[in-house]
Amino acid sequence: MFLLSCRLLLKTTIKSQRRCYSQQPELASKRYNLTRGNYASIRGSDINFFQSILGQTRVFTEECDVDGHNLDWYKAVKGSGKLLLKPKTAEEVSAILTYCNDTKLAVTPQGGNTGVSGGAIPVFDEIILSTSQMNKIISFDEISGVLVCEAGCILDTLNEYLMEKNFIMPLDLGSKGSCNIGGNVSTNAGGLRVIRYGSLHGTVLGVEAVLANGTIMDCLSLMKKDNTGYDLKHLLIGSEGTLGVVTKVAIQCPVKPKSVQLALFGISNFSGVLETFKQAKQNLGEILSACEYMDQTAIESVVRNLNIRNPIGDFPFYMIIETSGSNEQHDEEKLNTFLEKIMADGVVQDGTVASDYTQIRSIWELRERIIEAQLLDGFVYLSDFSVPVNSFDRFVHDVQNQVGDSGTVTGFGHLGDSNIHLHVISKEYTPELLSKIEPFVYEWTSKKRGSVSAEHGLGFKKKDYLSYSKSESVIDLMRNVKSIFDPNHILNPYKVLPDKK
Amino acid sequence: MFLLSCRLLLKTTIKSQRRCYSQQPELASKRYNLTRGNYASIRGSDINFFQSILGQTRVFTEECDVDGHNLDWYKAVKGSGKLLLKPKTAEEVSAILTYCNDTKLAVTPQGGNTGVSGGAIPVFDEIILSTSQMNKIISFDEISGVLVCEAGCILDTLNEYLMEKNFIMPLDLGSKGSCNIGGNVSTNAGGLRVIRYGSLHGTVLGVEAVLANGTIMDCLSLMKKDNTGYDLKHLLIGSEGTLGVVTKVAIQCPVKPKSVQLALFGISNFSGVLETFKQAKQNLGEILSACEYMDQTAIESVVRNLNIRNPIGDFPFYMIIETSGSNEQHDEEKLNTFLEKIMADGVVQDGTVASDYTQIRSIWELRERIIEAQLLDGFVYLSDFSVPVNSFDRFVHDVQNQVGDSGTVTGFGHLGDSNIHLHVISKEYTPELLSKIEPFVYEWTSKKRGSVSAEHGLGFKKKDYLSYSKSESVIDLMRNVKSIFDPNHILNPYKVLPDKK
Repeated sequence: MFLLSCRLLLKTTIKSQRRCYSQQPELASKRYNLTRGNYASIRGSDINFFQSILGQTRVFTEECDVDGHNLDWYKAVKGSGKLLLKPKTAEEVSAILTYCNDTKLAVTPQGGNTGVSGGAIPVFDEIILSTSQMNKIISFDEISGVLVCEAGCILDTLNEYLMEKNFIMPLDLGSKGSCNIGGNVSTNAGGLRVIRYGSLHGTVLGVEAVLANGTIMDCLSLMKKDNTGYDLKHLLIGSEGTLGVVTKVAIQCPVKPKSVQLALFGISNFSGVLETFKQAKQNLGEILSACEYMDQTAIESVVRNLNIRNPIGDFPFYMIIETSGSNEQHDEEKLNTFLEKIMADGVVQDGTVASDYTQIRSIWELRERIIEAQLLDGFVYLSDFSVPVNSFDRFVHDVQNQVGDSGTVTGFGHLGDSNIHLHVISKEYTPELLSKIEPFVYEWTSKKRGSVSAEHGLGFKKKDYLSYSKSESVIDLMRNVKSIFDPNHILNPYKVLPDKK
Repeated sequence: MFLLSCRLLLKTTIKSQRRCYSQQPELASKRYNLTRGNYASIRGSDINFFQSILGQTRVFTEECDVDGHNLDWYKAVKGSGKLLLKPKTAEEVSAILTYCNDTKLAVTPQGGNTGVSGGAIPVFDEIILSTSQMNKIISFDEISGVLVCEAGCILDTLNEYLMEKNFIMPLDLGSKGSCNIGGNVSTNAGGLRVIRYGSLHGTVLGVEAVLANGTIMDCLSLMKKDNTGYDLKHLLIGSEGTLGVVTKVAIQCPVKPKSVQLALFGISNFSGVLETFKQAKQNLGEILSACEYMDQTAIESVVRNLNIRNPIGDFPFYMIIETSGSNEQHDEEKLNTFLEKIMADGVVQDGTVASDYTQIRSIWELRERIIEAQLLDGFVYLSDFSVPVNSFDRFVHDVQNQVGDSGTVTGFGHLGDSNIHLHVISKEYTPELLSKIEPFVYEWTSKKRGSVSAEHGLGFKKKDYLSYSKSESVIDLMRNVKSIFDPNHILNPYKVLPDKK
């Protein structure tokens, strides 16, 4: 079990209150029992070569420059990288990788370093290849809505650029202020807008990536329809930098909604949650843009620990429904009619509709500050699964039975995407409690044909659990794909694929 | 250049009037200059083996049973298959492919045989492996909207099944009455709903496929979010049966719209077409479900040859805008307001909104019967490209300049997806005119970073033009992927990948 982030819709500052298992970051290699591969060590001549490519100012060897890039987003684990490179072009990336491939130097590509599965930091002394200086917006077509940009563009920067043109990015993440679009693509980042705009496999039209041998793979199609052979860009999406370094992205962007509405519901039983979701899809249809679920334990901790008001009182379950549309009056009518209907049918027991920014912000806080609130109660064993929506509540109950009195289990998440964050809260971290949780939760997920990583990827933290979601033959195929793209295995070693038994 | 189908929204019967270059189908190997690979020939002992797997009734060797499966959808070219197998399960497919892989017998997977690039028929004596008897609906989850079914299910059957449950399939094709979902996935079929629901890369959640060596690749996730390693199902989507035989599909289905509206616009210049598209996205946003464009030549032929009324008179350009939404009154208001706005701004010069089935049908006929009408004027050189929408009209003009008086060039298609069908009409087929058209259109498309196959795939007809859309290094990667999935190259040979130079 490891620490996972949750999307922060609002830019609340919770870093100061964030806890992790270890107050001092532990070596990733130690915590995850990883052994260094047979890679070359960095020599002075290597540094000289990289300086010949990038100049003096984009090659970093000082601890003060490199250390932040070794540390994972939760400051829980760290790598031992000693060299940080900041190329500005795909050609520079190509020259670097060609050299590393020839000399067998391992490389960890890094975007905004906001990943939570350990995919973005080195484990040992891999060279950190940061895309942060490849941050140019290349083009935006206001007719087709297609944006082309370099991998190091920050998600929020892209969104702000688009907002001025009446468009938005099709994804929205808590880390949007620092995450890079290249990292988003490499992780297949999820977030809240998936229910409306789908995953990056649908919205990313093209990818340029540099492969391990320096080949610049030009799959940067700007076209929505492109049936010319195997669509290799999909291998890059979600491969966490193990198949190539994403350098450019073309992405289909939706028009900015003119109206955003929010409703909070209190519901007395889980079948009501499912019915509300079903009715929301049937009645709100095209304007439904978020469908979140939280159990009472989750909301109660926010109210108790953060002194945030719950406007509708106590219920076993809560839901937040967001709509985004092109006509405020229509959207309001739809949402109100829907609300009246499900309340009249007794599906939900109470509800409120937010009509201004303050109200909307206040409701979102109930959802978005759950982790922050839970961390004030002790240690939180966090995770992220996809399981069928109708099993969310059963999952929470079964894990509660499994851990007994040693922890409180709570569930919340992106119901509309079958994506649950299941947390176990206890006074303190103990290996005994962890052993009750794992592998129980993975076995449970596997029995439901769920996914042991819904939206965060595997990194080095979850790679050994891949077999709970994929068969050995499929994992072998993945290994074969890896060998095509990166025969010397220099790209992001120790990540995604489990060691062969 | 070859014959391409166009989506038929309405089930008009045009087969009797359809023409093709050759009234008698020509051997595909001859027309496309293909040489038989080093595969085994089918022996009596092979037949015995297949009968031991499938029984007597699902192994076909009689000409009358096999011939229809040799013939492409346009009846223009044919293969020389001598054996047709109809497995019912993935396990039977696995047994067949294991045997074929061991004995080096080539296999052509076939769904509804509605492909138009030659991907679905054998070229020589490949064994035709039909998925038509794998046609069970396995499950539908009314909460998540996820349908799981076997590959041989007919698209229209699935849609009708879903309609009763208030859902629809996320794709709609002219061939929906006979095409199979497995074939749709293998082709990455496009169609009209792409603008609204995206491509199959976004909507297909899971795929089960049998690889050449008989391995059943279980990537049949039912989860919208699944970040567990490389998403191999995307390689199967659009690989035209060359990497594996799709046996099951899990697909995300949208809620059935409660209201569908249609508008036809007449527009005097191409910049008005682009502005109308832009305004439709801005104003109709979430309810926009089709955005089609037709030039005057296209509409004029429908009016003249098929005696169909054009309700708004003559204009250089026409557009059809469709909306699908959850509230009839809201949708009507949006469409009317949008129409009034763009007419007041002088963007469009005339327009009409259809409010009942007869009117809607009559407007769609103007778009959907274009090919039928053009075929009555002579030979039609059809094709299908993705190019930037703002270059549609320039493309038509440039091809007209290129062919001069020897043909009339016309353009229409899915503007909302940057997908143009560019047709050249002449009194009769001549190789001289063809040589003026090709490779000119591919070079033109390539300069615009377009796609030489937008929605139909490559098959054997377009495989040699792949390099106009993909670099040699990318094509080499595709070849490597092919070698992983099908090392003996028994699956659908002569398709998708060009021969290595």
